[in-house]
Parts: sequence; C-alpha cells; structure tokens
Amino acid sequence: MAASSSVNAAQAIVGLAVSSHGSHSADRVAVPAGGFALSSLAGRSLTCSRSPRFQQQRRCPRQASRAARPRAAAVETLEAAATEALVEKSINTIRFLAIDAVEKANSGHPGLPMGCAPMGHILYDEVMRYNPKNPYWFNRDRFVLSAGHGCMLQYALLHLAGYDSVQMEDIKQFRQWGSRTPGHPENFETPGVEVTTGPLGQGVANAVGLALAERHLAARFNKPDNEIVDHYTYVILGDGCQMEGIANEACSIAGHWGLGKLIAFYDDNHISIDGDTEIAFTEDVSARFDALGWHTIWVKNGNTGYDDIRAAIREAKAVKDKPTLIKVTTTIGYGSPNKANSYSVHGSALGAKEVDATRQNLGWPYEPFHVPEEIKSHWSRHVAEGASLEAEWNAKFAEYEKKYKEDAAELKAIVSGELPAGWEKALPTYTPESPADATRNLSQQNLNALAKVLPGLLGGSADLASSNMTLLKMFGDFQKGTPEERNVRFGVREHGMGAICNGIALHSPGLLPYCATFFVFTDYMRAAIRISALCEAGVIYVMTHDSIGLGEDGPTHQPIEHLISFRAMPNILMLRPADGNETAGAYKVAVLNRKRPSVLALSRQKLPQLAGTSIEGVEKGGYIVSDNSSGNKPDLILMGTGSELEIAAKAADELRKTGKTVRVVSLVCWELFEEQSDEYKESVLPAAVTAKISIEAGATLGWEKYVGGKGKAIGIDRFGASAPAGRIYKEFGITADSIITAAKSL
Amino acid sequence: MAASSSVNAAQAIVGLAVSSHGSHSADRVAVPAGGFALSSLAGRSLTCSRSPRFQQQRRCPRQASRAARPRAAAVETLEAAATEALVEKSINTIRFLAIDAVEKANSGHPGLPMGCAPMGHILYDEVMRYNPKNPYWFNRDRFVLSAGHGCMLQYALLHLAGYDSVQMEDIKQFRQWGSRTPGHPENFETPGVEVTTGPLGQGVANAVGLALAERHLAARFNKPDNEIVDHYTYVILGDGCQMEGIANEACSIAGHWGLGKLIAFYDDNHISIDGDTEIAFTEDVSARFDALGWHTIWVKNGNTGYDDIRAAIREAKAVKDKPTLIKVTTTIGYGSPNKANSYSVHGSALGAKEVDATRQNLGWPYEPFHVPEEIKSHWSRHVAEGASLEAEWNAKFAEYEKKYKEDAAELKAIVSGELPAGWEKALPTYTPESPADATRNLSQQNLNALAKVLPGLLGGSADLASSNMTLLKMFGDFQKGTPEERNVRFGVREHGMGAICNGIALHSPGLLPYCATFFVFTDYMRAAIRISALCEAGVIYVMTHDSIGLGEDGPTHQPIEHLISFRAMPNILMLRPADGNETAGAYKVAVLNRKRPSVLALSRQKLPQLAGTSIEGVEKGGYIVSDNSSGNKPDLILMGTGSELEIAAKAADELRKTGKTVRVVSLVCWELFEEQSDEYKESVLPAAVTAKISIEAGATLGWEKYVGGKGKAIGIDRFGASAPAGRIYKEFGITADSIITAAKSL
Repeated sequence: MAASSSVNAAQAIVGLAVSSHGSHSADRVAVPAGGFALSSLAGRSLTCSRSPRFQQQRRCPRQASRAARPRAAAVETLEAAATEALVEKSINTIRFLAIDAVEKANSGHPGLPMGCAPMGHILYDEVMRYNPKNPYWFNRDRFVLSAGHGCMLQYALLHLAGYDSVQMEDIKQFRQWGSRTPGHPENFETPGVEVTTGPLGQGVANAVGLALAERHLAARFNKPDNEIVDHYTYVILGDGCQMEGIANEACSIAGHWGLGKLIAFYDDNHISIDGDTEIAFTEDVSARFDALGWHTIWVKNGNTGYDDIRAAIREAKAVKDKPTLIKVTTTIGYGSPNKANSYSVHGSALGAKEVDATRQNLGWPYEPFHVPEEIKSHWSRHVAEGASLEAEWNAKFAEYEKKYKEDAAELKAIVSGELPAGWEKALPTYTPESPADATRNLSQQNLNALAKVLPGLLGGSADLASSNMTLLKMFGDFQKGTPEERNVRFGVREHGMGAICNGIALHSPGLLPYCATFFVFTDYMRAAIRISALCEAGVIYVMTHDSIGLGEDGPTHQPIEHLISFRAMPNILMLRPADGNETAGAYKVAVLNRKRPSVLALSRQKLPQLAGTSIEGVEKGGYIVSDNSSGNKPDLILMGTGSELEIAAKAADELRKTGKTVRVVSLVCWELFEEQSDEYKESVLPAAVTAKISIEAGATLGWEKYVGGKGKAIGIDRFGASAPAGRIYKEFGITADSIITAAKSL
Repeated sequence: MAASSSVNAAQAIVGLAVSSHGSHSADRVAVPAGGFALSSLAGRSLTCSRSPRFQQQRRCPRQASRAARPRAAAVETLEAAATEALVEKSINTIRFLAIDAVEKANSGHPGLPMGCAPMGHILYDEVMRYNPKNPYWFNRDRFVLSAGHGCMLQYALLHLAGYDSVQMEDIKQFRQWGSRTPGHPENFETPGVEVTTGPLGQGVANAVGLALAERHLAARFNKPDNEIVDHYTYVILGDGCQMEGIANEACSIAGHWGLGKLIAFYDDNHISIDGDTEIAFTEDVSARFDALGWHTIWVKNGNTGYDDIRAAIREAKAVKDKPTLIKVTTTIGYGSPNKANSYSVHGSALGAKEVDATRQNLGWPYEPFHVPEEIKSHWSRHVAEGASLEAEWNAKFAEYEKKYKEDAAELKAIVSGELPAGWEKALPTYTPESPADATRNLSQQNLNALAKVLPGLLGGSADLASSNMTLLKMFGDFQKGTPEERNVRFGVREHGMGAICNGIALHSPGLLPYCATFFVFTDYMRAAIRISALCEAGVIYVMTHDSIGLGEDGPTHQPIEHLISFRAMPNILMLRPADGNETAGAYKVAVLNRKRPSVLALSRQKLPQLAGTSIEGVEKGGYIVSDNSSGNKPDLILMGTGSELEIAAKAADELRKTGKTVRVVSLVCWELFEEQSDEYKESVLPAAVTAKISIEAGATLGWEKYVGGKGKAIGIDRFGASAPAGRIYKEFGITADSIITAAKSL
C-alpha cells in the first residue's frame, strides 16, 4: 500500500528539499550576548534519556543544553546532519510561534506546543498527506489535537504547511474577537481543523469516528485495482484526555473494531493543571491500552528522539489490525529554562523574561513571529505536493468512475453531501386509520426507509438496539470483519458514541450518523451532544423512552428536565413527534439539517395516529392540528408535544362538546417555530387569546413563553416513579381531566 | 483485624445454624413429573468449567443438570455437605424470589439475580456485617448493586436478612406505585439500599466514594487501641457498568488511592441487552484493572463454585493496599433451561412456561414467593447478630469517647449529621468597601472558613484546584499515604468525581463533600449530578468560570444553557451569587440543604461588593437589592444574577438619574424564591409592574416566567466566542446600555 511507505517517501522528500535549498549557514545562529552557546546543528544530538518517573531529571532540557555534547560524527553524512538541523529549526519555529502568540494574547497554553513540536513537525512535514489549498480534499489524512488547549501547535503547523486559513496575521490575532485562531480549535472557524476540541477526551473519540468512517468507506468502495479510500487518522492526546472516561470508552471500542489506521500519540508529559500527574494519575496507560486491544509503542525521548518518533509511526502503520498508541514521553514547555516540566507553563504566557530566557536556551535569535527563510522555503513544497496528491486522487477517481459507475455515484454523494433527488419521498406517511404505534417503532420505519435512499446513513445504539429500534434491517453489523456494514454496535458507551458520531459526521458531508439510547441518558453524553451543536455536526440523536411513559424502570430512567435542557442549547433541534407523520417530519428535518444536530425524543408506549398531523407541520416547528374556531380567536388553545398531544386532542374533543372553541397546537420543535415569521406565529398562537394550556410529561419551566402569564403549563416538576405507566400518568395529573379542570379555571 | 477473619467466623456460624436445625430431609426435593432428577444436595458438585470465551458451552447449566454427576463423597463430611445444600437452597430461594416478583410485575430483570445469587448469598449470609434492624448503623459494611436493574437480588437479600423495609408484601409489590421495591434500587425508598443505582457505572463510582469515606474516617479517628472505623465496601457490577467511562474514571482513581477495603465483583456473564458482549466488548477487563492498580482475581465458575467465591473474598481482604476486582464468570438467568445465557432473560419476565421449566430444572417445588422454613430459620440469626454487632460497636465507641473526647465528638457529628452550633458564624461577610474579587476566590474564603468548623467538609477539583480555588489551606492532600487529609485530587474525571461525592455524602450524614470544575463541564458529570438530586445527596458543586466572562478559552468553555438546565432539574439548588455576601449566603444554603445538592456558579472575573446584598437575601432565593420607589410600584424592575447583578445596579443608577423609580432584584436561586410565600414573591416582583427586564450571561429561555409577556430578557442565545471577556460582553450586548435601551422601549 502506498500509505505504509509514506514515511520513507516523506523523508526522501525532506532530503531533496534540503539539498535543493543549498547553504545551511543560516542554521548556525548568532549567540546572543550572555546566552548559551548553542547551534541548532549541534542541537540534534541533544539527547535526554528519561525514565517514566523522571522526577530526578526535571531540569533535563536546560542541563542538557548546558552540557558538552559529544558527537559521533563519523557515522553520519553531513547532508543527513544538515537535514536534521533543519528539522530542529522547524521544530523551534513551531515552538516560538506558539510562545509568541500566547505572549501577545497574554493568554493561552504554550506548554503543549513546546513539548509536542517534534511530533507535530514530523506529522505535518514528513508523514501526513494533505492539500493545504483544499482543506476539504476527501482523501486527506486527518489530524485531531485532542488536547485542544495546545491549539497553537496546530495553528503553527497549518501556517507553515500553507493553509490560507492561518496567515501570520491570524497567528498574531490569536484568541482575539473575530479571529480564525480561537482559544481552542474550532473546525467551523479554521479550515484545516477537522473537529472542535478542548473539552478533554472528545478529540480522541472524534478520531475514532474519523477512523471508523475511513474503514467503512474503504470497505464499501475500494476495489482490488483501485483503493480509492485510503488515509490515516492521527491524534495527539494528553494526560487530561487519558483520564476522561470518554477516552476509555472510545478507545475500547476502537480496539474492538481493530481500527488499524488510527494512530494516537499520547503526550506523556506528567504534568496536568494541578501539578505532577503523580497526585492523581498513576495507572499504567500503555498496559491499559494493551488490554483494550491496541498496539502500543513507547518513545522514551519525545523531545529530541525524532528518529524514534519516525520509527514508531512506521511500526504503527505496519500493524494493520489494531489501532496504535504511541506513548511519547515529552517535557511540557520544553526549552523554557525555568518553567519547563511544571504546571506553570501549561496554561499561561511565559512572560517576557522567560520568553527571552527560552530564546537564549534554544538559540533562537529572531524577533517574535519570525519564520526563518529556509523554513518557509522548506515547507513551501507542501502546496505543490498537496495539489499533486489531490490531482492524483482525482485521476484515480476518474478511473474508478469509469469502471464502477454506481459505486462512484454513491461515493460522490458521500463526498459532496448532496442528497439524492427525491429522497424525501421515501419517508412513510400515515392516516388516522394507520395502527397505533410507539414513535420508537415509527422511527425504525423511517430509518429503514431512509437507509434505502441515503448512502451515508449509518449508526446504532449504545447496547439498546432492540429497545431504541435502530437496526437497519437490510444491513449487517459494522464489525472488524464486516466494516462495510452499517449497524454500529457502540456498547454501553453513550458519551463515546456521541463523540464518535461527531467524527463520522465531520469526516464527509454525506455521512449521516445516528445514534441512540434512552432519552434520560443524554445526560451521559451531553458534552458530546453540545459539541455536535457547536461544531455543526448534523448527528441524529434517536432518544427513546422519552418520559414517565416508560413506567416501571422508575425515576433514574424517566427524563423530566431533558426537553427544556436541549431547547436551551444553541444550534440544536429538539424534536418530540406525536405520531407517524410527525416522526417522518422529524426525520425530514433531521436529514436536511446537516449543520445542526437533531434530538428526537420518542415514546416507548403506543400512540394513536392523530388527525391533522403532518410532515409540513413539523417543518414549521409548531402548527394547528385541529380547531373548531374561526377568525383566529378560539376560546382556548391547547398545546402539546409527543405523547401528550393525544391527551390535548382528547381534552379538546371533550371541551368542544361543551360548546367551546378549542385549538390544538403541536409544538413539536420550538427552535423551528421560533424561526417562523411573526405573522405565522401569531396565526398559530394569537397574543389576544390568553387562555392557553400546555401539556407535556416534563418540566414546565420554559412553557411560560407560550402559555403566557394567564395560561397554565401542565407538566412534571418532580422526579418520576416506578410503576406501570398509566398509573404514573394518572398520579401526576398528565391527563385530559387535568386539562379540562385547568380550562375551567382560566 | 476482626474483619479479615469474618469469612471463617461466618462459616462457623453457618455450620452452627445448620446443625441446630437438625433434619435436612427437606433438602431433597420432590422431582416434579416430567422434570429432571435433581437434588440440591447433589447440586453442589455441579461444576461447569467455563472458558472466558465460552460460546461452545452456552448450555452449560442445563447440560450439567442433565449430566450424571459423580461425587467424591469420601472427602467431605456429611455436615459440610448438608451446609452446602442449605447454601444452595438459600441461593435458589433468592433466584425464585426474583423470578416470581418479576413475573408478577410482568416487568423487571430476572437474569442478574439468577446468575449472581451465589455471590449475593455469600456476601449477605456469610461475609457482610450489618444490623438489619438499623440499616443506618455507622460501621456496617456497605453493599452497592451497580448493575441496579438486578435489584430483585438486593430486595431478596434484604428480605432474607430481616430488614423491615422489604417484607414479603413489598416483594409482591415489586415495581408498583408507592412500593418500597422500585424498578431500580433507590436509597430514599428502601432503607438498606445504600445508593441509587440503575444508570450504569454510577454504582461502582459511588462505591469508590463509600470506600474513600471509610478510609478517610479510619485514618482520622482510629487509634492503635481502638479501630472505631472499620468496614468494607462491596459492589457488584456487570458488563454494562464496565463499558461506561465513569467506571474507568472511578476505578482508576481508586487504584491510585489504593482503597484496599473496596471489593468489586464483576459479573462476567457475557450478555448485554444487544446480545453477546462479543459484538462490542472484547477488551481484557482484568488486564485493564491490573493496569489501573487493582488486585484481580478470576472465579471461573461463579454459578456453583461457592468455595472459589469465598476464597476470592478472603484473598481480596488480605490485599490491603489495593482495591480488588473479582471477575466472577456467571451465566445470566442461571437455571432457566431455555433462556439462560441469552439477552432474553436480561430484562423481561421469563413467562409462565419458562418459570415452570426453571422450577423443574432447579428442583424447586414451591409455590411463588415461598421461602422454605429452614431458609427462614437459617437467615433469622442475622437480626440477633446484627444487634450484637452494633452493641459491640457502641461499647467500643463508649470506650473511645472516654479516652478520646474531642475526636469522639467530631466523629459523632459526622455520624449524626448534626451541625456544630453556631457554625454559620464562620461565614465571612463583606461591605461595599471590601475589595472587588471573583466569586471563585470568595468561594475559597468560604470553604476555608467552613473547614474550620465543619468536621465533615472535604473535597476537591477535577484537576482545576488552582482555577476553581478549592484548596483547603489547613489540610494536605487525601492520598494513599495521607488519607486523613481533606483535599481530594480527582484528576480530570468529572463524572467519576460527582459519583464519588455521592458515595461520600451517603456514607455518613455529617460528611459534606464538595467538588469542582468549570461550570460548562457539568455536562461531563450531569448524570452524576442528577443522581445527587434524586438520591438526596447534599453534594456541593463548586462550578467556576460560569459564563462568557472567562474570555479567551472560547465557546467550548463558556456555559450558555447550563443555568436553565439545572433550574429545570428537580430537587437541586442552582445558586449564582453576585458578590461576597451572596457567596457566603450560597454556602449557608448549601450546607443546610443536606438532602438537596447545590450547584454554585461562580465567576472567573473580579466583581465589586454590592450594596444591599445579604446572606438572608440568598436564603430567600430572590430579594430587593436596591429601590428608589415606594408603595411596591416602581416604574421598572431590573433582575439579574451573579456577575450581571452589577450591570443591573449600574443601569439602575443611570435610569434613576433620569427620574425613574427602579428596583433591582437579585434572583440568585430560583428554586428558593419559588418556595417563598405568594405575599413575599409579590413584594419583590409585583404583578402590576409589567416593565421588567432581566439580564444574565446565559440562555434567556425560562426568564419569561419573571419578566412576563411585556418584559424583556437580556441574555445569550448563541454559543460564546474566543476573545477577551470585556469584548465579548460588549459584542453580545450584556451591558448597562442594553438595559437602558430596553427600558426605554418598554
């Protein structure tokens, strides 16, 4: 395979690039007055053997820089030495871009970029295949900085590699209003950044999703004569990520799936915000990953052991049936004489004095934000290389298209995100005569209908497939041996599941991941769902058992505050369909919203197919289901969602019998309703009608918005209970009788 | 130590109990027509060697029951055999109580109780020290069923052990409205249940908290001549728990802390809801726990290898510096001929036919809900034994009290939960002249003041101690070697942290755990916080960096929807203090609410000490901070919380200069305000005043409740941004100018 030899190829390219730029005299830097004599040429033999528990050697970088450094000159050619000198200079360029940007912003995290610059350089300059002028080229290698606080590492690399999104001006605007270099990597701000990271552990789980997407698409579309899908996913994660449960969830399932093209670098720097990791994190991480089914490698000197890093990557690529964790022991803030290897370098600017000392220590005579000419020149080849990589791939795809027409069309749809014309015709519709059914079952009908027309639909449940009703019947399980299939078995790993789906969604615009658990367990995955919303990943969250209607399992399993908690979250759609047509409508909305995730709250219990519900209604978020008034002035407006819309309809029937004019409104998606015109909203919920009652088996908070000061919200402002569902509904007063009583009091 | 020999003691007692009840003829059961010949005496040699990947042996229980079972009769005495027969009968009693209760409810989870009955029996009958007539006896061993769906196991055990909370009538009312046997174990419903479990992974993390509490209290209070604190924490967790990230978080830190008296049974039954765990969970769990620093043991035959289970517990107790994981390979639904070892037995009633078949297979001739007399008689000793265990301990405490008066008083306060008289006088107060400060710093002043007067206050941060400002300066770190200290270093494990604090809070009424992270990362621990609220654990959540005011870290770190999402959660107090007095008030409320957790949202940035704020005001949830009107009819009411109360005060000053009467109201805790009398609420927010404006740096949803239909809520209904805080406030319009503009428009 082409990819597995890319290190050597890249190294060869490095050699060429260096020799083509001739003189290396610039590598010998001027020694500032009072500084340490240090040349970047000599720097390459700066080795620092470091034990895993390295307290005795805390000052290693500075000590080493002061020590005499013997050279075994005979064994290496001058050219190789010059190449490594250039590498070291590139690495220091990355370090000082980070140092200077954080210093100017007086805010940020210099420690990680200083420690991880070597692996960053090797990845972006020697290993990864990408096209800086098209950050969205489909077959690019993906890189995720799970330890997102160290984002200046990534910005420096994107800048050197020639991405238009990170100009020098952007780096100077680090962490400022409106800049493309925010305080944590945001895919929607900075092309070249694949996913939004920062909340620890999310990134590595996103990377599992990216690698799953590659594995799945490769299995579906590659042919013996044309491996059209073929790239790696690289991730850097730190001690913080490693401690987070989500990382263990995602890495456990990645090991199960055997995602061989996922290569993770664990920045083992032994420092977190509260100090040495000895105070809270003494497990054997590599042994844990062995247990999770990963291949593990330890690079003991991540600071200057460049060849060890390169060899580790080669080894990782050679292991094709397991993901690889490369534990790279580094020094946080490497190069800072007084702050390296301490928490003080993690999340604050070094300060002018320490910046100077670091410049002296690393032999860096340049002004802030300087990229030496030979470094610019060296990196400049990536623009041309990237263009030719993409061109090669385009040619390969053209061949593929000729030979495998149907597959090519499907892959194209996945790459472009274009939905097949008329896809929405696949959505099932229902009449009031259709059999009553739980919306979770209706959801399954929709998923299975959509699976036939949407090539990018795939997903599954956190070990509740038979309860969430999420199996795609025409497909098998995505497993190590059958990665072309589309039913994903996430195990009981809700948080990892959400973040993996974010990775899938952001891999290709046409991938539509869905995932499922009980609605109450969105609490387990809320951080990942929030990232979906923030990073514009159109994941479909299929959340069943959406109320006390689940009955006997009791309050731990009965959501109460969950609807409102998602309605308050920006850029996400909270949909609670009432029956078949509304469930179809919810899916239509969810599929169309590719930059906004959707949460579907679905019933465990059977619900009748209501008269007046419609897909179009759902698209407006709120609409009139039934009304016996005229002139937009009913005596009473009843509002409901999901399983309680039926109760509102029943109460309306009763009240109409007493001569009242009653309107029933479905408020299936508040966010969509709020986006409608004022005229439309007034036509549904006229301000002049003050007798408004809502009913929903959840917290009443928030409903004041629609029922107004003179209306009444019927709901549940306590925890649920363990009993048969009907009994709980009655005891909690979620009944037509409650509505009728309330109506009389208004 | 007394505890480490308790197995032998208990076994001796078993022997006594058996021989005192004479005839064992009842052990030989009648073989029903058409059934398999099976006696519970013979059953004890029913062994089933099972490989970890045991697909070939799926039918093991049934096959074994059909096979001829040779006996090595010569090596055992008749009495020992009779004892084991009684044990087997007791285990089958547990199994059938679970089967029958689930059957009657037609809802529930029989599979786990059937598989785990042996370990359940051994724990409650042979190993654990408890007093059934006082489930709250301080020095009892704690048991947590982390796989809470299997709660019929626990109810059966509590019933047999003689707890008043689980009478036979309660078992018959399993999962019914108002019963004491809800669908998952709830500590607030069923005395004897230590914690609320069901959401997977929570229980094992609670158990870590319980074990931490024991370790801490033992280190603080035990004397060479009087080990007044001395008990174990046992937990059963299943495959589902093991997959959850929270379990790995909690077990990683438990390994770090070396909690030797924590003994976990991993019910390794290879089945989860979606089928065989082979489809999603193939990691080497024991190897992972080795890596986490645990001692691990494997009981290969958990179905009938009673002695292996006993030996494992002895071994676990002998390892004092590490927690122990006993992997117990079991068959889910053991005894059910057609459903054992399949997902179908996990979460549904067996059905009448299969119940009959299971009765035949296990040789159980009794009607439903029958406890054989010899089993009743055998278990009956626990009432007397428990009483004497407690009496012994009381005597021991009386000695302790004589000799160590001060320690005894402190321990008594922790055991009883009684707060020291006048503790609230320790709370700091402030005047408008006190220096401006961030409420996170003011929080630290409160924590340190309270640490001097509250013996049970302990806690810490998820690796953000220096940002959350949570260190208790008079104490060191709770660590393996210094467990008497009170600063807990949780590492970057928010979810585990919350659940561990629930365990600490529920260990003893006088333990007051607090824990901290950035407010936005409540998303990581929301499931644990919800359990705090549900299970009435008065944990104090110290959540700093509570808004866009944190600035450059950007939208991943800036909470928006979080305030409203906790305001909607039942039984929890969401407090957002504005300055020093309000922070002190928040702590007063949090300490007093021992059955309701509190979330304190605190600022990163400095805030002035405002005129008019008070502790008493906070206790009312909402109150008037300033007003220049009379007759409860101001022209305008401005409401704010936290860092925006200052902005409201400034706007009021400006508006008053124009001749308006303006009231400023702090709505620091909505839940407390709602609990006030209607008169009080009207005195603060008169309905007749419709010009009401709220300002809060978070989602506006929910504020309609207070500003009404004609008011205006100023807030943030989008994600945040990365920039200096002042700039974001201005760009988002969270300013006095916005209030003034809104006021003019009203």
